[in-house]
Amino acid sequence: MRDFYLDDFKPGDRFESPHGYTFTDADIITFAHRYDPQIFHLDVEAAKNSIFGGLIASGFQTLAATFRLVHAIGFLDHNMGGPGMDELRWLKPVRPGDTLRATAEIVEVTPSRSKPDRGALKYKVSAVNQKGETVMTVLITSLVLRRR
Amino acid sequence: MRDFYLDDFKPGDRFESPHGYTFTDADIITFAHRYDPQIFHLDVEAAKNSIFGGLIASGFQTLAATFRLVHAIGFLDHNMGGPGMDELRWLKPVRPGDTLRATAEIVEVTPSRSKPDRGALKYKVSAVNQKGETVMTVLITSLVLRRR
Repeated sequence: MRDFYLDDFKPGDRFESPHGYTFTDADIITFAHRYDPQIFHLDVEAAKNSIFGGLIASGFQTLAATFRLVHAIGFLDHNMGGPGMDELRWLKPVRPGDTLRATAEIVEVTPSRSKPDRGALKYKVSAVNQKGETVMTVLITSLVLRRR
Repeated sequence: MRDFYLDDFKPGDRFESPHGYTFTDADIITFAHRYDPQIFHLDVEAAKNSIFGGLIASGFQTLAATFRLVHAIGFLDHNMGGPGMDELRWLKPVRPGDTLRATAEIVEVTPSRSKPDRGALKYKVSAVNQKGETVMTVLITSLVLRRR
């Protein structure tokens, strides 16, 4: 695994997660009880009669699991925190048994003017299921250390 | 608790969560192991030497817990899913013992042209800690049923 600093990135660089994340019904329901208790995330029977036709994962779980995959790529080892995210789009439902993989494409690399040891890394993350369908996209900004 | 449909909202309406969400170290570490295994979310000792000076919650947990508070307001009872989020900003760290409350302010109400039974509700969510500091803001869009 490479040891990435801000200086190692340029716009257009693309990374793929080394493994996937499989959603189980237990995982979906446990997350929903704590963070997103809507019936189509909690109740298999009621979800059948919802517009989704069955249990689906909370979009916040889809986001968190996708970030887990981004972390596995290894380019956040010198991450100093994240100022924010933009343009998150949930495009397709995620259902029990689905396996997501993530790709991250570098959009902008902006060294800090006031703090020469770091800079902002902006990257577009896509989560793709086992059928090749993109289920979510988001732009994430992280503060990353520069090489000394 | 009111039974809210899209027609019941107008821009500027403001809601507050009926209770808060307290972050514990166990909660922060458990979430981090699964979704965001960076040292300042996982390891109390290593976090002391990080730029945050101690354990902090994953921003994705802050987001999910804040959505739990938004759900508790009750205005998502006729939610039909979320197309996305914009302009998420993590403004302050969330630490063990911190209690967040959420406010949601309606920004836009847009009835669907193609599907007369629903429309898009865009609202700005703020998460505020026990000291009154805003730790996160985000714009969320949900699809909500109209009154028949």
